[in-house]
Amino acid sequence: MRRITGLSNPTVKYLRSLRDKKHRRRERRFLAEGLRLLTDARETGHCPETLVMAEGREAHPLLDALVADVEAAGGDVIEVSQEALSKITGKDNPQAVSGVFAEFDTPLSRIDRDAAPLFLVAQAMRDPGNLGTMLRTADAVGAGGLVLVDDCADPFSVEAVRASMGAIFTVPLAQARWDEFHAWLREGPGQLVAASLRESHDYRAAAYAAPCFVMVGNESRGLPEEYEMACDLRVHMPMKGRADSLNAAVASAVLSYEVLARLG
Amino acid sequence: MRRITGLSNPTVKYLRSLRDKKHRRRERRFLAEGLRLLTDARETGHCPETLVMAEGREAHPLLDALVADVEAAGGDVIEVSQEALSKITGKDNPQAVSGVFAEFDTPLSRIDRDAAPLFLVAQAMRDPGNLGTMLRTADAVGAGGLVLVDDCADPFSVEAVRASMGAIFTVPLAQARWDEFHAWLREGPGQLVAASLRESHDYRAAAYAAPCFVMVGNESRGLPEEYEMACDLRVHMPMKGRADSLNAAVASAVLSYEVLARLG
Repeated sequence: MRRITGLSNPTVKYLRSLRDKKHRRRERRFLAEGLRLLTDARETGHCPETLVMAEGREAHPLLDALVADVEAAGGDVIEVSQEALSKITGKDNPQAVSGVFAEFDTPLSRIDRDAAPLFLVAQAMRDPGNLGTMLRTADAVGAGGLVLVDDCADPFSVEAVRASMGAIFTVPLAQARWDEFHAWLREGPGQLVAASLRESHDYRAAAYAAPCFVMVGNESRGLPEEYEMACDLRVHMPMKGRADSLNAAVASAVLSYEVLARLG
Repeated sequence: MRRITGLSNPTVKYLRSLRDKKHRRRERRFLAEGLRLLTDARETGHCPETLVMAEGREAHPLLDALVADVEAAGGDVIEVSQEALSKITGKDNPQAVSGVFAEFDTPLSRIDRDAAPLFLVAQAMRDPGNLGTMLRTADAVGAGGLVLVDDCADPFSVEAVRASMGAIFTVPLAQARWDEFHAWLREGPGQLVAASLRESHDYRAAAYAAPCFVMVGNESRGLPEEYEMACDLRVHMPMKGRADSLNAAVASAVLSYEVLARLG
């Protein structure tokens, strides 16, 4: 363990820079924060390269275990002032602990369509909280992966990682343009199902087939018509009120649980 | 329409203060932002007392209709500088428009248990985005209302109102302490169903009965054991992955759509 003093220290600056997408992309590194999330990571075999905590924090056996693992793996354990930690995490929590991980998304070609009866797909999803929530749902339904199509929010942002509740470490995550994804999908078995309002079936009565790829679109615009028309099946959930759509992460979950009940 | 100049104008300060819960509570007023949300409000008969927009914005027929309605109702239509609007809304969007509404939550005694087969209940839900998403889901499943039990996030916060996508204006919303809610529930028919890991039934096989009150708990702690034990039915969704819970708004939606399919 080493101690760093001063707010302008290069390591403090580096850690803080990882809150910014541009720097994450360049470094191919991301932050996960909080003892619970870091313990989830550890239990799934993901050890941070760097672990940062504040001096004067309370001792905790899970934190001790984390420190031992990082040091055994040759990683960097850093103690900073509470002021510097606040600067890194953006929060006034002296118990905060933050870890730096290498990004590890999966090439589309390594998504295994035999691994599970269903997979989740998000197109142009812009809200990192929704994206993290979809990862969490993907874990819960035992999905074989989440594919992010077109320009989605960054799944390695602090907000998405937090909302995933550790699923960022367990769910295979691929990123692709639509043409690339669609071409890959059609190379093998796979039913592409869109949550859609266009000529669609009631989601409780539709015929699902494994491996089933459940796709939702952008929070405001939904899926492009061309994409919906390329799907094998379009389904809708009943909308009994005034609005014509659900929150995208909610729609994905309701549909995924239906598919799981039928194919799982 | 009147024009206000200067950032220290009392009206600008008042509008800005409504982003803060303490001031909202005192004034019993809240903000809804964006032309779409304000049009939703208008279409459901909710007219803002005050409407604020920036000078130099583009004209829009829906905005004109809104202005006419507010003026006809004797409300205040205010034009401010783009700088002042940014100060009020916290955003750099010159097309932004913001409305001030009187709060209108429903006393528990006015929730009509004959109005719908299901109702949603959230206990100690702390995230305003989750709370707004639950309102949106409540609208979608045609719920008779959403009851907020114990200390929840403020449903009239800008974040919750935005996430509700207009459902804040359409879904009856009651707030109560647990003892009060539980006493009211037992005065009449009503099945209380908790999403729970304790001695619970598979949610697809459970026997639901209308009016069914679907309850989820706090994001971190879930429901207190005492509350779960006071329920008529405890159900769980399959959890195929590492985690043992879903996002609270997602859990509520998956369960509500199941109940709707069975009782709707």
